[in-house]
Amino acid sequence: MSGRLWDKGGATDAAMLRYTSRDDWKLDQRLLAYDLVATRAHVRGLRRINVLSEGELDAMERALAELVRRNDAGELVLTEADEDGHTAIESALVSMLGDTGKKVHTGRSRNDQVLVAMRLYERDAMDELEALVLAAASALVALARREEKTPLPGYTHLQRAVPSSVGLWAGSFAEGLLDAVTIVRAARALTDRSPLGAAAGYGVNLPLDREGVARELGFSDVAWNPLGSQTSRGIVEATLLAAAWQVMAIVRRLAWDLSLFTTSEFGFVRLPDAFTTGSSIMPQKRNPDVVELMRAACSIVQGALTEVQTLVALPSGYHRDLQLTKSPVLRGLDETLATVRLLPRLVEGLRFDHERMLAAITPECFATDRAVELAASGIPFREAYRRVADEIKALAQGDAPASLAARVSPGAPGDLRLDLLEAQIASLNASR
Amino acid sequence: MSGRLWDKGGATDAAMLRYTSRDDWKLDQRLLAYDLVATRAHVRGLRRINVLSEGELDAMERALAELVRRNDAGELVLTEADEDGHTAIESALVSMLGDTGKKVHTGRSRNDQVLVAMRLYERDAMDELEALVLAAASALVALARREEKTPLPGYTHLQRAVPSSVGLWAGSFAEGLLDAVTIVRAARALTDRSPLGAAAGYGVNLPLDREGVARELGFSDVAWNPLGSQTSRGIVEATLLAAAWQVMAIVRRLAWDLSLFTTSEFGFVRLPDAFTTGSSIMPQKRNPDVVELMRAACSIVQGALTEVQTLVALPSGYHRDLQLTKSPVLRGLDETLATVRLLPRLVEGLRFDHERMLAAITPECFATDRAVELAASGIPFREAYRRVADEIKALAQGDAPASLAARVSPGAPGDLRLDLLEAQIASLNASR
Amino acid sequence: MSGRLWDKGGATDAAMLRYTSRDDWKLDQRLLAYDLVATRAHVRGLRRINVLSEGELDAMERALAELVRRNDAGELVLTEADEDGHTAIESALVSMLGDTGKKVHTGRSRNDQVLVAMRLYERDAMDELEALVLAAASALVALARREEKTPLPGYTHLQRAVPSSVGLWAGSFAEGLLDAVTIVRAARALTDRSPLGAAAGYGVNLPLDREGVARELGFSDVAWNPLGSQTSRGIVEATLLAAAWQVMAIVRRLAWDLSLFTTSEFGFVRLPDAFTTGSSIMPQKRNPDVVELMRAACSIVQGALTEVQTLVALPSGYHRDLQLTKSPVLRGLDETLATVRLLPRLVEGLRFDHERMLAAITPECFATDRAVELAASGIPFREAYRRVADEIKALAQGDAPASLAARVSPGAPGDLRLDLLEAQIASLNASR
Amino acid sequence: MSGRLWDKGGATDAAMLRYTSRDDWKLDQRLLAYDLVATRAHVRGLRRINVLSEGELDAMERALAELVRRNDAGELVLTEADEDGHTAIESALVSMLGDTGKKVHTGRSRNDQVLVAMRLYERDAMDELEALVLAAASALVALARREEKTPLPGYTHLQRAVPSSVGLWAGSFAEGLLDAVTIVRAARALTDRSPLGAAAGYGVNLPLDREGVARELGFSDVAWNPLGSQTSRGIVEATLLAAAWQVMAIVRRLAWDLSLFTTSEFGFVRLPDAFTTGSSIMPQKRNPDVVELMRAACSIVQGALTEVQTLVALPSGYHRDLQLTKSPVLRGLDETLATVRLLPRLVEGLRFDHERMLAAITPECFATDRAVELAASGIPFREAYRRVADEIKALAQGDAPASLAARVSPGAPGDLRLDLLEAQIASLNASR
Repeated sequence: MSGRLWDKGGATDAAMLRYTSRDDWKLDQRLLAYDLVATRAHVRGLRRINVLSEGELDAMERALAELVRRNDAGELVLTEADEDGHTAIESALVSMLGDTGKKVHTGRSRNDQVLVAMRLYERDAMDELEALVLAAASALVALARREEKTPLPGYTHLQRAVPSSVGLWAGSFAEGLLDAVTIVRAARALTDRSPLGAAAGYGVNLPLDREGVARELGFSDVAWNPLGSQTSRGIVEATLLAAAWQVMAIVRRLAWDLSLFTTSEFGFVRLPDAFTTGSSIMPQKRNPDVVELMRAACSIVQGALTEVQTLVALPSGYHRDLQLTKSPVLRGLDETLATVRLLPRLVEGLRFDHERMLAAITPECFATDRAVELAASGIPFREAYRRVADEIKALAQGDAPASLAARVSPGAPGDLRLDLLEAQIASLNASR
Repeated sequence: MSGRLWDKGGATDAAMLRYTSRDDWKLDQRLLAYDLVATRAHVRGLRRINVLSEGELDAMERALAELVRRNDAGELVLTEADEDGHTAIESALVSMLGDTGKKVHTGRSRNDQVLVAMRLYERDAMDELEALVLAAASALVALARREEKTPLPGYTHLQRAVPSSVGLWAGSFAEGLLDAVTIVRAARALTDRSPLGAAAGYGVNLPLDREGVARELGFSDVAWNPLGSQTSRGIVEATLLAAAWQVMAIVRRLAWDLSLFTTSEFGFVRLPDAFTTGSSIMPQKRNPDVVELMRAACSIVQGALTEVQTLVALPSGYHRDLQLTKSPVLRGLDETLATVRLLPRLVEGLRFDHERMLAAITPECFATDRAVELAASGIPFREAYRRVADEIKALAQGDAPASLAARVSPGAPGDLRLDLLEAQIASLNASR
Repeated sequence: MSGRLWDKGGATDAAMLRYTSRDDWKLDQRLLAYDLVATRAHVRGLRRINVLSEGELDAMERALAELVRRNDAGELVLTEADEDGHTAIESALVSMLGDTGKKVHTGRSRNDQVLVAMRLYERDAMDELEALVLAAASALVALARREEKTPLPGYTHLQRAVPSSVGLWAGSFAEGLLDAVTIVRAARALTDRSPLGAAAGYGVNLPLDREGVARELGFSDVAWNPLGSQTSRGIVEATLLAAAWQVMAIVRRLAWDLSLFTTSEFGFVRLPDAFTTGSSIMPQKRNPDVVELMRAACSIVQGALTEVQTLVALPSGYHRDLQLTKSPVLRGLDETLATVRLLPRLVEGLRFDHERMLAAITPECFATDRAVELAASGIPFREAYRRVADEIKALAQGDAPASLAARVSPGAPGDLRLDLLEAQIASLNASR
Repeated sequence: MSGRLWDKGGATDAAMLRYTSRDDWKLDQRLLAYDLVATRAHVRGLRRINVLSEGELDAMERALAELVRRNDAGELVLTEADEDGHTAIESALVSMLGDTGKKVHTGRSRNDQVLVAMRLYERDAMDELEALVLAAASALVALARREEKTPLPGYTHLQRAVPSSVGLWAGSFAEGLLDAVTIVRAARALTDRSPLGAAAGYGVNLPLDREGVARELGFSDVAWNPLGSQTSRGIVEATLLAAAWQVMAIVRRLAWDLSLFTTSEFGFVRLPDAFTTGSSIMPQKRNPDVVELMRAACSIVQGALTEVQTLVALPSGYHRDLQLTKSPVLRGLDETLATVRLLPRLVEGLRFDHERMLAAITPECFATDRAVELAASGIPFREAYRRVADEIKALAQGDAPASLAARVSPGAPGDLRLDLLEAQIASLNASR
């Protein structure tokens, strides 16, 4: 398409176009399906208020269906010349329908057009994130069930501290992820209101059927205040990224543990082969590359969050600055989805070295339990504490199987309550 | 108190103590009331499993009541020598009760002790934040009602764009704040489980009455997995700060608008006197200092968020690193509360200059509405767009009162739906 | 190329490859020229220690020259199947030269291969950044010269405070940018040591001619400690991004000022047409889109900085996490270069509205100067301050031309010392 | 003092004062010595332009000397009622000298007063940081000398990769710290210009002897452009924090390594006793608390950096927002100094377990070297790579002493070039 939507013949030039268009055409490729479905809802709404005739709507619907088909088939490929996806859709409609095509932009602005496409993408992303997090939590609970009583040292300060279990360890991640689902759901709710009709932040002097359009797009409500809708841009997105961060921070911890547990020194875990790679110069190694990238991915989300948060230090109203929210949001959410998607397979494929883990539960690990026993028998805790310090010197490896058994039995310290986690997952899945 | 809890006579020294204790005694002063109430619940729980006798509990209860009294009266002042609040409480109990005092630490670790104090503080802070945000939203809706039809230019790119109203502007902040309440509530839910009994992350070999203790402290549940509880430290806190950020980002936008609107150039608003100060060298000025600080305060929360998020890049288990979560959490949440607390008074005291705002709605502001009218009458939008560009050159100031009236009438573009906001606030208040 | 460099036939699969390869092939397209030049230096070094024969070197050189030619011509296009640029180069050499091609990887690892390509890119980027910043500073000093005595209100708290000048305003940015050059140069120095020979962080058991290779690549030194070289990855990059941030923070301030000065309310400046765009729905507006994007661009750099800083929270040695430094570094530095490149044209094209700026210097603006006069004549400052507050009420617009002239004369308050800036720019240019 | 400097009798109140004064009185306690020395230079300058008489100067000098004495003796304690240190100094002078005291504020604003105090503090902090970093680098080089040939596995992906040495490991940190010195020095240069005379950003209509004042305060130059000086606030500070971050990122890596190396699993290092603490519930442990806090401290600096960077997203001119730069700068720099100060003692006290480290160099660690040997003898690298994978299976522990010796000999792979580091440290120390 030759002319920019806003081109009134004034001076612009290629360098400026490149700086202003940036990689929007790439980002918009990702958003095109959403833009098309929102455009269809918009024109149907225009028909209901008689801005379009029945015939015009029919023509529009057919043209849009064709664009959807092309896009699904990978034939609607944006290029730098398209500036952005919104322009590309309108250009295509104009070239297919002539004057009728030009009417698609009546009653909307690129501001609410991009906003609705983003919110539809975000709603989908958050839905998928919730599903993936629940699947990961399920895999972790299943692992906790499978290895519920497998002894594993409990570390504090990375020092062996007390006897613990793989079940406790795996369950801790499931619990963290279920916490994150609370936030993911709350953040998702902020994407669930239709911004269409907000135009450039001050509404449109047409009796738009905003509720009908919202309903068709599956939104639970209209974002009534057009300026509130406009200025939510970037702030809602930061909240989505913060929710994604919470998930990724837990993944980072899991990846960190696995990175440690797969060292020769710990040697507790073997990763599934698909999660390791060889070294270009060190033939003997199988490196935990995928796990390391899963650990590192949290920094992408954190950077994206900082980027969006910094960007929106602005007064009310649309500013071109807000265009730059798109890139970090897509970068952060896509990365989160790609990472969490790998979790079930990773968790299911972990193989634990029971002997090495048991051997790492050295006598000192029983000191705390012994001190508590003494304290519970009436000896003041601080004195028990000092007495055990002496006792422990006399203990030799393997003297404390009874205590260990107590640690990894049902009702043991740190009872896993996996039943509660399973019930929570079932309930969350049921309410999706 | 002479000895550190963990002191076994090994070498430490003053420089190390200062580096490790830091300003914890100052931060813990803020947490002391929570630590005392959690300690009382803990010892009552110890009584129920017979670790304490009835007499020991009575003595403990009396001693703790005395400490609560002293703390309420400002007499329990921590100093650098106390290292931290947990040590101070235990030391005080020991000095009051002798051996009985030493039993307070049975079945808990400083890890779950600090965690429960933090979560109680956080729960209170989030409750107060919700109440303050709702109060601010109410004040903004009241302002929107009061100035519902007061004309104000709608800006995009900081350029006058279309006629709008003070009502629309004020309502947009209310809507944003109510969005934030969704996240504040969700984040608060993460603080609402009792970590007591998690000890150092692996539970305790005592049949602690975790549910009874949780109930007494008003938690809705126990954080069952002790490692999950331990490793939530910092991650939950980041989520709280992200929720606080969302509130503050909206406050920042309001403050930015007021900073602009109070310039001589805009001249739309006069701030309440209490929110302005004079200049030490420029006698004539009343500067919007308070509003500027309210704008800047968001950066404190953002910095605190980054600090906590960066801190928790760690494997599972307690690490001393986590001690450093305290300072940014208190700094970020306290700042948020202090700032939001000022909002109702600020909003209620705003005085608008109706004439200047009306005068700023220059003829070009009507161009968009006119283009939409033409488009709705069947002229393709792009052609309408070009036609209006010509028309507008002929328009003189003040020619469009009819359009303006349409803009600020009920059912106008950008209908405020203040009734919905009021209902939402009422419903949120009812469910608190 | 069919096989991965590290493929020993173990299990991997497509999903994993996509997760691990990511968009490295896109990023590496940008680095390919650097990788090729470093590869040429590496094989020449191998010849000097007789790992390659003269004939092998000749063949390698010819093949590499052909690859350089193809790359310059845009014919060497990486695809997702290439995994990364390093693999693509080796694959190409093997397909061109057979067994000889396989020798290119002797004595280096992908770790030092990517590191040297990054450092060469970074060194170029920092050199270009310095040149662009100096050009921008020159344009600003030229503007300061041109409008040295043009009155402009000096604002504090966005309130008119004292008379000032366009010269003072423009000079302030030049001074800030020259400060930034100090940091850009220092940061650039950290990129100026050759990492080749560090291999995977522990060197290679070959007597590599590290100094010869460094010399050929134009590095001022070898990064001797291979682990120091390896672990500098990400830390040096954060420092480059922090330097870029400093430049961009000044650009952000300039863009903010222009955004304000081009409002209807201020009306001080007209931007060059190329820096504005129209609105899709508001025909009458010319919006400062480019300036807004220049303002927003700082957040890209800040996000990238946070991303890298967060990423490198790791123990010593290579971790796959470090692969993720590439994307934020290229994103942040490329954005900085693209933005700063626009500055001279923007600055040169600014047109000031002298009348409106003069009119904005209202009587109160002279109060401070008057208070200082009184104070200097012996009246205690605080009393002068109160006396002027009364005087100013009597002043009418336009009464103070003498004071104004004093403000914008040579030797005036806030003497610009443009001569010093010009000398500094000349000296910096001379030392490039 | 009863009245605020800017109090013109308008309405303010306690809540507002608390919100605006914040903890400035605490921060200013730290800056008071600098404010006093700058005030003395300022009044001497006022004498030179005859704003003060000889007698007035004498009185001022005596009063300021008394205030310096009181401050040094810890008797000049700011309280919340003082609002800030600048007000306290002026109030004290007025109460000591009457009308003469009021003249101290002639020709300066609180804006340049706080700026000069900050820059003096920052210059000192950066000087101390440089000295501390050099001392730490020296300690690390000394350690590298002492343990130059002590075998230590070289890790990649936390997997044992190739034989290396403690010397190589220790030297890598020294090299990183010396890199950081480059940035610390460059950043320090930005603090080395006197802002006094900038007033509120537009200079003062008095012929202030700016150069004389700068000379007396030991600045190398005047920050000529008053607006440039004013708007550097926050941007220079961010650059200082970025330099501090670079140092702390290296400390974080060292602390991470030590945290790993002191696990039971690695068991390579014993920390000095002063750097460890016991556990309140686990009697047997000595935990690396201090090292963990040194690791965590980097997040304080990173948070402070984000805070300042976010804060300065503002147009030109003073805004009250800038007051909030003080807290993160003091927090970040003080933390950095406190942490780096501990390094020499930590490094000197490290005790390595030579046997365990040697035992960790298992046969596979020699695979890479062997592959390189084969490759260098003419076998294509990729083939060598595959051949060694077979060979290594046959190797038994301890079979490769010759290769190991080669690794830790002078001229070995990864030659440490400690001589160069020593020369660099000597040269940097000489130029301080």
